[in-house]
Amino acid sequence: MTERLRETQTPGDTPPEALDRLIGAAADAARVLIGSRPWDRAHWLELVASRLDATADDLVPLAAGETHLGMDRLQGELKRTTFQLRLFAEILHDGSFLQVTIDHADPTWPMGPRPDLRRMLRPLGPVAVYAASNFPFAFSVAGGDTASALAAGCPVLLKAHPSHPKLSEATGKQVTDALAEAGAPDGIFAVAVGYDTGVMLVKDPRIRAAAFTGSLSGGRALFDLAVSRPEPIPFYGELGSVNPAFVTPEAGAERADDVAAGFVGSMSLGNGQFCTKPGLLFVPAGAGIEDRIAALAGERPVAPMLSEHIRSGYFEGLAKLADRPGVRVIAGEMTRAGDPAPTIFATTVPDLLADAEALTQECFGPAAIVVSYGSEEELLAAARVFDGQLTATIHGSGQEPVSAPLRDVLSERVGRVVWNGWPTGVSVSYAQHHGGPYPATTSIQTTSVGTAAIDRFLRPVTYQDAPDELLPPPLQEDNPWQLTRRVDGVLQQV
Amino acid sequence: MTERLRETQTPGDTPPEALDRLIGAAADAARVLIGSRPWDRAHWLELVASRLDATADDLVPLAAGETHLGMDRLQGELKRTTFQLRLFAEILHDGSFLQVTIDHADPTWPMGPRPDLRRMLRPLGPVAVYAASNFPFAFSVAGGDTASALAAGCPVLLKAHPSHPKLSEATGKQVTDALAEAGAPDGIFAVAVGYDTGVMLVKDPRIRAAAFTGSLSGGRALFDLAVSRPEPIPFYGELGSVNPAFVTPEAGAERADDVAAGFVGSMSLGNGQFCTKPGLLFVPAGAGIEDRIAALAGERPVAPMLSEHIRSGYFEGLAKLADRPGVRVIAGEMTRAGDPAPTIFATTVPDLLADAEALTQECFGPAAIVVSYGSEEELLAAARVFDGQLTATIHGSGQEPVSAPLRDVLSERVGRVVWNGWPTGVSVSYAQHHGGPYPATTSIQTTSVGTAAIDRFLRPVTYQDAPDELLPPPLQEDNPWQLTRRVDGVLQQV
Repeated sequence: MTERLRETQTPGDTPPEALDRLIGAAADAARVLIGSRPWDRAHWLELVASRLDATADDLVPLAAGETHLGMDRLQGELKRTTFQLRLFAEILHDGSFLQVTIDHADPTWPMGPRPDLRRMLRPLGPVAVYAASNFPFAFSVAGGDTASALAAGCPVLLKAHPSHPKLSEATGKQVTDALAEAGAPDGIFAVAVGYDTGVMLVKDPRIRAAAFTGSLSGGRALFDLAVSRPEPIPFYGELGSVNPAFVTPEAGAERADDVAAGFVGSMSLGNGQFCTKPGLLFVPAGAGIEDRIAALAGERPVAPMLSEHIRSGYFEGLAKLADRPGVRVIAGEMTRAGDPAPTIFATTVPDLLADAEALTQECFGPAAIVVSYGSEEELLAAARVFDGQLTATIHGSGQEPVSAPLRDVLSERVGRVVWNGWPTGVSVSYAQHHGGPYPATTSIQTTSVGTAAIDRFLRPVTYQDAPDELLPPPLQEDNPWQLTRRVDGVLQQV
Repeated sequence: MTERLRETQTPGDTPPEALDRLIGAAADAARVLIGSRPWDRAHWLELVASRLDATADDLVPLAAGETHLGMDRLQGELKRTTFQLRLFAEILHDGSFLQVTIDHADPTWPMGPRPDLRRMLRPLGPVAVYAASNFPFAFSVAGGDTASALAAGCPVLLKAHPSHPKLSEATGKQVTDALAEAGAPDGIFAVAVGYDTGVMLVKDPRIRAAAFTGSLSGGRALFDLAVSRPEPIPFYGELGSVNPAFVTPEAGAERADDVAAGFVGSMSLGNGQFCTKPGLLFVPAGAGIEDRIAALAGERPVAPMLSEHIRSGYFEGLAKLADRPGVRVIAGEMTRAGDPAPTIFATTVPDLLADAEALTQECFGPAAIVVSYGSEEELLAAARVFDGQLTATIHGSGQEPVSAPLRDVLSERVGRVVWNGWPTGVSVSYAQHHGGPYPATTSIQTTSVGTAAIDRFLRPVTYQDAPDELLPPPLQEDNPWQLTRRVDGVLQQV
């Protein structure tokens, strides 16, 4: 493991022959992991979490230096990251994720005699994880994709993001050392570097799934490679979202100040570099919310962006938006010099509907559009413009006539509907869903945040009439692991 | 509904403008279905099942005339089909398929205050189902894909298989009439006809998922279309499998007659036109199993195949196999005249390993290869040749030293491991898994048979801090539907 890690620590890309060895080691580890016990994997994850917590004073300054994100934010993100590792450890102890289902042989089964059938989920095999730039801990080397894949029993080949190479190396060393100390199999985890490396990973036949968080163009390119392989593999890509938010007339009248302050706080959090940033806010015309937002945005400090690449892309996005007909700049500056301040555009629903393609593109950074609507019909028409969002937000009591139809329109289009809050700050929990229709993700049925993220890396296998002693323990008749199982159609809690 | 059905009843393909109207009606129905209650959908499925049972005397002879399958077999298949509809109705009454998960707001959540989060599964929207030729009931108009999609709350556009057009039309009319009588929304189901129709369906942006059972070439072509759309959709394709079976030395010595009889029965069932047909049998050299198989195969009656297209493809496959080095024909005839009798080839593991690509291709029809092995090492080496199978079968007590490593090798490669039985006759139940790695399917994580097939047509949506009265009933605090739910991480059975 030391040798393999060292190779990834040399400057520049991971050499192809080194990558080949890493993938080979991961494939060997996968065969060992199939037989690993969930609580052993839980122990590994807990040790990784402890080691990251213990080295926070080294890792956080490294992250701050490479990402320009604040120390407080990064400390919070690391806390979230280690909590996430521990939450996956918790569900490994619980065991429900295996979805054990047992049908005893039944000669009276109406369609004809039924054999003994026993199904459980098993790990997919080596997973390629593509780290994101904007969450250097929570969606990077030891982030949610890594945690959920390891929890499932899948080795991880982590393709580092080029925007924080030193942090990736340092985090990778902590993860690798902790896993080795915990007794995890050799080859279970490695960090690899380089653009070509990312392409080689998704094309390698030994890689059985991939998880990605990043841009629409990069994610779609990798998705296309994954599905055009001789043997296509699942590709879990989280690509982008503008997260529209809708303020009902009543909420606009009652809580204009709160809404304006909450919106500016959310859209400028992390300098707007969140996939859940609310990029469009629909407000009742005449409620004065635009002016409040413009004033508050003007008070927000200027802050550096994650990288020069992202900074230049952001200013290009700003210039495109400013050029659209009917769009006004009401806060911020459009010059490309220096670090950006929050920039707010304003338009109306008719102008948005006339130019929806351009105005509903993600602009990654602290920019947003406030769109005023003149009627509830306009509000609903605007909501129907969107497809494929991670989130949508409604501000309203729920008593307004528009609430129910708005909820219905949005439920069709998004993964999470937020009421009277803001979509940033995605809680890691059991009921979380961080996903949605394309282009929010390439995989509408899965989440990359929350405990259900483990499902992405598992597949069912059924054993028919197998000798009990040759069944995996979760399927054995006397239930040695004391799991909740569905037996003959009925859930049996232990 | 009458007008739309009539259009699909005219000879030839469904006209594009008619198809457009059918898809439009399905998209409208999808919006109604999102709000439908599971037990209402259960009622619809039960009515469809009753009507198919009641018209069996019309449908079965139609099927026999178009498929050349026997009346007994077809009656059994229809029984399986209506049982399947009723089993999905049963799980709709149960409600666990919604996977309801509720996290109450928690200000003490370790990563930071948690909002109230509530997740459930919701229907994907209109589904294109591609019927198969070889199961004119169970994998056709009213088959498992249709049943599971309707159960999920998704409208179905059914692309009929050209090999049984009259049966497709007649079954479609029964399904459509039963759904209308049951009060299901207009547009929930329609049969469409034609090759171009199939292509148009998978490319239409209103279609949100597709399910297919058929050939590797046809399935891969549709898969490629599904994933290269501007918005890719899930494509559930079951493509092909050779279902290897392995006889341990001990089982070969003890049960040679049983094994030979069971194998010939399974490989010739339905004239070998099953995706679970065991296409290769590995036997210990010198146990005399080949001779027994050859003798039994010679006694099986000649039978017509499903279609001339399949018949000619089958004879091409036979000719290719007969040409391979080291392969002998030990039963059956290679002439292309008339209907086929079961054909058995014989070879050895070294010859198989030297020519694995050619000898592990599916030959759709009553053909199989008996492969003799000289050692347990050869047996395991042969097992490692395979990838992506629906099933693998082991004949053995489980006490033999080779049993555990053989199980491990096969568990990596297949969806279902059968012990001391045969893979044909797939039971429809809770623990069934009919799937596997590519090319067995295009979707390694899902099944097309059994109650878990409903998962293919559902996606999660999470509601954050929503007013209780605006939540779907399964998520409301007082649990009006009395569902089993996971609350704050703990499963709560009602």
